[in-house]
Amino acid sequence: MQGVDPAWLPDEAFRPIGTRRTLIRGSGPLVDTVRAEVARACARFGGRVEHGAAPGPFDLVLELTGEDSSEGFTHERRGGRTTVTAQGRRGLLYGLFHVVRLGEAAFRGERGRERHAPASALRMLDHWDNVAVHPVMGQVERGYAGGSLFWEDGRARGDLTRVRAYGRLLAACGINALCVNNVNVHKAEARLLTDRIGDVADLADALRPYGVRTHLSVTFAAPMLLGDLPTADPLDGAVRAWWAEATARVHEAIPDFGGYVVKADSEGQPGPFVYGRSHADGANMLAAALEPYGGTVHWRAFVYDHRQDWRDRTTDRARAAYDHFAPLDGEFADNAVLQVKHGPMDFQAREPVSPLIGAMPRTRLAVEVQATQEYTGQQRHVCWLGPMWSEVLRFRADGKSPVGELADGGLVAVSNVGDDPFWTGHPLAQANLYTFGRLAWQPDADPHEVLDEWIRLTSGEGPAAGLRAILDGSWRTYEKYTAPLGVGWMVQPGHHYGPSVDGYEYSPWGTYHFADRDGVGVDRSVATGTGYAGQYAKPWAELYESPDTCPDELLLFFHHVSYGHMLRSGKTVIQHIYDTHFEGVAEVAEARRTWASLAGLVEPARHARVAELFEEQLRSAREWRDQINSYFFRKSGVADAHGRRIY
Amino acid sequence: MQGVDPAWLPDEAFRPIGTRRTLIRGSGPLVDTVRAEVARACARFGGRVEHGAAPGPFDLVLELTGEDSSEGFTHERRGGRTTVTAQGRRGLLYGLFHVVRLGEAAFRGERGRERHAPASALRMLDHWDNVAVHPVMGQVERGYAGGSLFWEDGRARGDLTRVRAYGRLLAACGINALCVNNVNVHKAEARLLTDRIGDVADLADALRPYGVRTHLSVTFAAPMLLGDLPTADPLDGAVRAWWAEATARVHEAIPDFGGYVVKADSEGQPGPFVYGRSHADGANMLAAALEPYGGTVHWRAFVYDHRQDWRDRTTDRARAAYDHFAPLDGEFADNAVLQVKHGPMDFQAREPVSPLIGAMPRTRLAVEVQATQEYTGQQRHVCWLGPMWSEVLRFRADGKSPVGELADGGLVAVSNVGDDPFWTGHPLAQANLYTFGRLAWQPDADPHEVLDEWIRLTSGEGPAAGLRAILDGSWRTYEKYTAPLGVGWMVQPGHHYGPSVDGYEYSPWGTYHFADRDGVGVDRSVATGTGYAGQYAKPWAELYESPDTCPDELLLFFHHVSYGHMLRSGKTVIQHIYDTHFEGVAEVAEARRTWASLAGLVEPARHARVAELFEEQLRSAREWRDQINSYFFRKSGVADAHGRRIY
Repeated sequence: MQGVDPAWLPDEAFRPIGTRRTLIRGSGPLVDTVRAEVARACARFGGRVEHGAAPGPFDLVLELTGEDSSEGFTHERRGGRTTVTAQGRRGLLYGLFHVVRLGEAAFRGERGRERHAPASALRMLDHWDNVAVHPVMGQVERGYAGGSLFWEDGRARGDLTRVRAYGRLLAACGINALCVNNVNVHKAEARLLTDRIGDVADLADALRPYGVRTHLSVTFAAPMLLGDLPTADPLDGAVRAWWAEATARVHEAIPDFGGYVVKADSEGQPGPFVYGRSHADGANMLAAALEPYGGTVHWRAFVYDHRQDWRDRTTDRARAAYDHFAPLDGEFADNAVLQVKHGPMDFQAREPVSPLIGAMPRTRLAVEVQATQEYTGQQRHVCWLGPMWSEVLRFRADGKSPVGELADGGLVAVSNVGDDPFWTGHPLAQANLYTFGRLAWQPDADPHEVLDEWIRLTSGEGPAAGLRAILDGSWRTYEKYTAPLGVGWMVQPGHHYGPSVDGYEYSPWGTYHFADRDGVGVDRSVATGTGYAGQYAKPWAELYESPDTCPDELLLFFHHVSYGHMLRSGKTVIQHIYDTHFEGVAEVAEARRTWASLAGLVEPARHARVAELFEEQLRSAREWRDQINSYFFRKSGVADAHGRRIY
Repeated sequence: MQGVDPAWLPDEAFRPIGTRRTLIRGSGPLVDTVRAEVARACARFGGRVEHGAAPGPFDLVLELTGEDSSEGFTHERRGGRTTVTAQGRRGLLYGLFHVVRLGEAAFRGERGRERHAPASALRMLDHWDNVAVHPVMGQVERGYAGGSLFWEDGRARGDLTRVRAYGRLLAACGINALCVNNVNVHKAEARLLTDRIGDVADLADALRPYGVRTHLSVTFAAPMLLGDLPTADPLDGAVRAWWAEATARVHEAIPDFGGYVVKADSEGQPGPFVYGRSHADGANMLAAALEPYGGTVHWRAFVYDHRQDWRDRTTDRARAAYDHFAPLDGEFADNAVLQVKHGPMDFQAREPVSPLIGAMPRTRLAVEVQATQEYTGQQRHVCWLGPMWSEVLRFRADGKSPVGELADGGLVAVSNVGDDPFWTGHPLAQANLYTFGRLAWQPDADPHEVLDEWIRLTSGEGPAAGLRAILDGSWRTYEKYTAPLGVGWMVQPGHHYGPSVDGYEYSPWGTYHFADRDGVGVDRSVATGTGYAGQYAKPWAELYESPDTCPDELLLFFHHVSYGHMLRSGKTVIQHIYDTHFEGVAEVAEARRTWASLAGLVEPARHARVAELFEEQLRSAREWRDQINSYFFRKSGVADAHGRRIY
C-alpha cells in the first residue's frame, strides 16, 4: 500500500518465492489467497505459479490435502523441492507464510518432514476502537497509533484496503481472530450488534481472505438499550430470546462470526450482579445464543471494585479476579471462555502472573496481554514485550503446566495498531504485534528468535545487530527507570504517561504503594497481609509468602519492606531504586546512540520517526529517574551510595 | 425572572420603597431605570411614584442635580423625608440601591447628610466565558455555575433577559464594568473584536441601563490572526494602524465601550516578548488605540514561566510578576492599567499580598481577585471570601497605603456566575459576588457588615444567625482542611478540585512544597532562599525574612522548616497540620448541622441545594484531612499528640 509501511511483509520478503516455480494444488477462497500471494511475488520477481497437473519440476509445492478447518501444515524439503501440505485451507495459508518467514533458507539443502500447528485455536486481537470519538478516550481507547483502522468519527471507513492489508499482516504472524470494537461499549458501538451489523460484516469480508474471524464486543445491557426490554437478567426468558434472535441475525450477516467479547460488572459496565446472577449465568446466556452457530463468548475476568477507599487496607484489588471467578470453576458452558488478564492488576510493566489462571481447571481460559503500550511507554518508548509475555506463558501457574497450555481458550492481545503509516506509531512497536502472533501460535517459542525473525523480515541483515541491541533488553530497561520492584502504578492518573509516584496512592482504584519514611510496598502475604499470596498454587504461594524467597522483581508487589531491606541481589531496596533508575536512563541513551548509528541502514522516514521518539523517550526516562529517586530520597533520607545527583 | 433566584434583590427588598410615595427629578436613560425600578415596586406594594413638579409630601426624593459622569450621591433624612441627590445619573442609580439596602431603616428617624462615592472608578467583573465550548475548559473556564450567561455553543444567546437581570444585580452591589469573554482568547473569541462585535454590542445594550460598561478580552496576535498582517509587533506602524482602525469600529458599535483586557506572554498566550518589546510597549499600543474614545487597556501582570524545571530551585514563580513589571514603573500610558493578581501565585486559599502592588507608584494598578472558587471549593464548598479580600485591601503593600488605595486603577474579580438558576451554583456563593461589589466600592468596609447586609437582603432575619455562623468563618475553615500554612498547591492537577499533595510537586508550573522526611516549605528568604521576601517594601521584607517573625499562616510560603518547628501559636508545624485538619472537618460538620436547622426558614429549593452540597463538602473535607494528615504522617513519622486516626 502506498504511504503505508510494509511492516514484516516487504516485497523483498517474497523474493525467494517470487523468483521460483511454485505449484499450488487445491481450491477454495483461502487457496485463492495463497495463489494470489504467490502470483504477485512472481509478477514482481519473475518466477512462475502453476496449478493442477502442470509438469514439474517445481521449487515449491503448496498442496491442500483435505477440507477441514484445521490450521496445521507439514513442511519438508527433499530433492530440491520444498513441499507444504495442509489438510485445511487455513493451514495452507499459514504454510505459505512459514515459507516466507524462512526466506532463502526454505530453498536450501534438505529438510525432514516437520509438522506445525498452533498451540491454540484462538489467537486474537482485541481492538479498543470506538465507533464514535469518545470525549475522554478518543477514537481508540489507550491507542497510541493514530485513529482506528475501522472507524472514523462515528462511521465505518468506506475504503477497507488498509483492513485487508492488516489481515494479511496478521495471517503472516499467525493471528486468526479480531474483535472490532472497544470492550467499553458506548452508545454508538452498542448498535453494531443490531442495525449496524452491516458495518461489522464489511470488516469480516475484508479480513476473511486471510483467515481472520471477526468478533464483536457487546454490552450486557443490550436487551434494554436496543431491545426495549425492562431487564437484562440473564435468566429471564425474554432476554434469552432477544439474544438468540440478535445472534441469529448476526450470523445471517457474518456466517463465520467468531463470537462476543464482554466486559461486565467492570469499571462501570453493566453486568449480571444487578440481577443477583453470577458471571457464569451471564456468560452462559450468551454462550447459549452463540452455540448453534459455533460461536464463542469471551467473558472478561477484569472485575474489581474501582471505587475502593484508599484508607481500607483489607480490600486488595489483586485478589478480585480470583475471588470473583475461582468459585465458578466448572460452571461455564463449553463455548464460554473466561478471558483473564495475565496479571492480577492491569498490565503494569511488572506483575506476577494472575493466580486465577492456575485455579480454573474446568474452565476454558484465554489469557489477555496488552500489546498497546498503555503502561509501557505508549509507543513513544521502545519496549519490546516479548520476554514479558514469554515469562508469563512459561509460568507454571497451577504448579504443573505452563500458562501457554492452561490457556486452552487461546491468547488475546489488546491491539497496538491504528491508522498511523507505521501501523503502531513507533515503528519498533511492530515487533510487539508480530511477537504476540508468533507466541500465540507457539507459546514456548524463544522470544529472542522471534525477534530475530521480525528483524530479518522487516529490515534485513544490515541493521540487525543494532536493532537486536535496542530491542532485546528494552522491557527490562523500561522497568528499571519506572516503578521499582513490581510495585507498579506510579503513573500520571488518567492518561497513564509519565511518572507520578503518588498519582494513584490516595485514589479509589485500589492501586497503592504505601510508601512512608521507613519503607514501601504492599503486604499481600497470608500471615500479615491481604492474603493474596495464598491464592497461588504450590510452590508459588510459599515462595511469594516470604520476603526471603520472593523474587526481587516482585518484592514490593508482595511485601512492605524497609528501605534498608537487603534484596536477594545483595543490594538494599533504596540503593536498588537509585541504581536501576540511573542504569535505565543510561541504557536509553545508549539505545539512542545505537539507533543514530543505523542511519543509512534503515529507510529514512522510519529512521527519522524513531530518532524523534528516542528524544522523547530519553527526556521521559530522565523525568522518571529524577522523580522516583527524589521521591524516595525525600522520604527515606538515605543518600545514594555513589553520590549521584538526586533532587 | 421566572425560575431564577432573585439573589439580593427579592421583591421584598423593595417593599419599603414600594409602599411609599417617591418623587424622581431628572431625565435620561439611567434615570429611566431608576423610575422603572420604583414604579415596579409601587405597582407591587401600592405606593406611588411622581415626577417633575408634583405636589408633596414625599417619603423619598431622588434628584439628579447635574449631568456629569460621577457615581457619588448624597443621602439624608429630615422632616420625614429621605432625600438622595446626585450630580450624575449613575450616582442616582447607586443612591436608589443604597436606599434599597437600608430597607425600612431608610425611612426612620433623622439622618444627617452623608456623601457616598466609590473609592475607585472601576469595579469590574472578568468573565472567563468562552464563546465556543473549549475541549478542555468548557463553556466557562474555571466556571462552577453552569454555562455562560452570554454564550452558548459558539453563539451569542438570543434572549438577553437574564443578562439585564444580571446587570441589575451588579448595579445593586456597585459593580460598573464587565468583560464578556475569557482572558484566554481562542479562535472564535478573537473575532468578537471584529466581525462579531455585534454580539458584544448586544450585551453592552443589555447592561447599559444599569450603568455597567462592557469590556472585551482580545488576543495580542489579533493583527495577524484577524488582519493578515505578518507581525503583531507593537511598534510596527501597520500593526498600530490596524488596532486604531479596529478600535474605531468597536466604538462605532459600542459608544461607551470600556476597553480591552489582555493576557499576554502568559501560559501560552502571545505577547510582545517575541518581538523583543516590553509589556509597556504592548500595553501602550492598545492604550493609544483606545485613548481617543476614553477607553482603558487592562494589561494583566500574570506573566511567569509555566515550563519550569522542578529540579531548578533558583527559579521562583512567586518572583515573576515583580521581576517582569517593577522595572517598567512609569512607562505605562495614563489609560493603561496594570492588572495584578492579589497574590504572587494564583488565587490559592492563602497567599501573601503581591509585592508588585507596593512597587508601582507611577503606574495605574488594578487588583484582581477570584470570585469563582477555582482553588477554594469550586462552589461546592461554602467559602465566603470577604475576609480574605478585606485583608488584602487593608494590607499596606508599600508600607504606607492600603491596597484599596494603591489600586487606583480599580478592583477586578473573576466572575463566579453562570446560567445556573442560583447564578453561582452554590446559593451561598452569591455572598462572594455581593461582597466583592461592596468592597470594590468601599475597600475599607467591614466585610462582616457587608455579609450581614447580604443576609438581610437575601434571606431576611429568620435564618440570619445561622447563615452568619455558616459563612463568617468559612474561609478559615476551608484553609484549615486544605493546604497548610500558606504552602498552597496541594490540589489535583488540571481541574484543581480535591487534594493531591504531590500533584504539582514535580510539575513544570513552579508550584512546589519541597516536603521531605524532615520538613516542608519554600525558602523564599533573601539570606538563604529565592530572595522573594526582598521584593517587599518595609516592614514586610524584614518581617517575612525570618521564620521567627513571619506570620504563621504564611510560614511555609516563605520558609522551609522542620516538622518540629515551633509556630508563634505555640504548636509544632506537624501538630498544627493535624489539629487544623481535624478542626476543619469538624467545623464543616457543624455548619452542615446548622444548615439543617434552617429548614423552614429558607426557601425549600435553596435549602435542598445547599444541603446536598454540604454532603459533598463534608466528604471532600474528610478526603482533604485524611490525605494531608496521612501524607505528612508517612513522611514525618510524628504521631498525632491526641492519638486520632491517621491512615
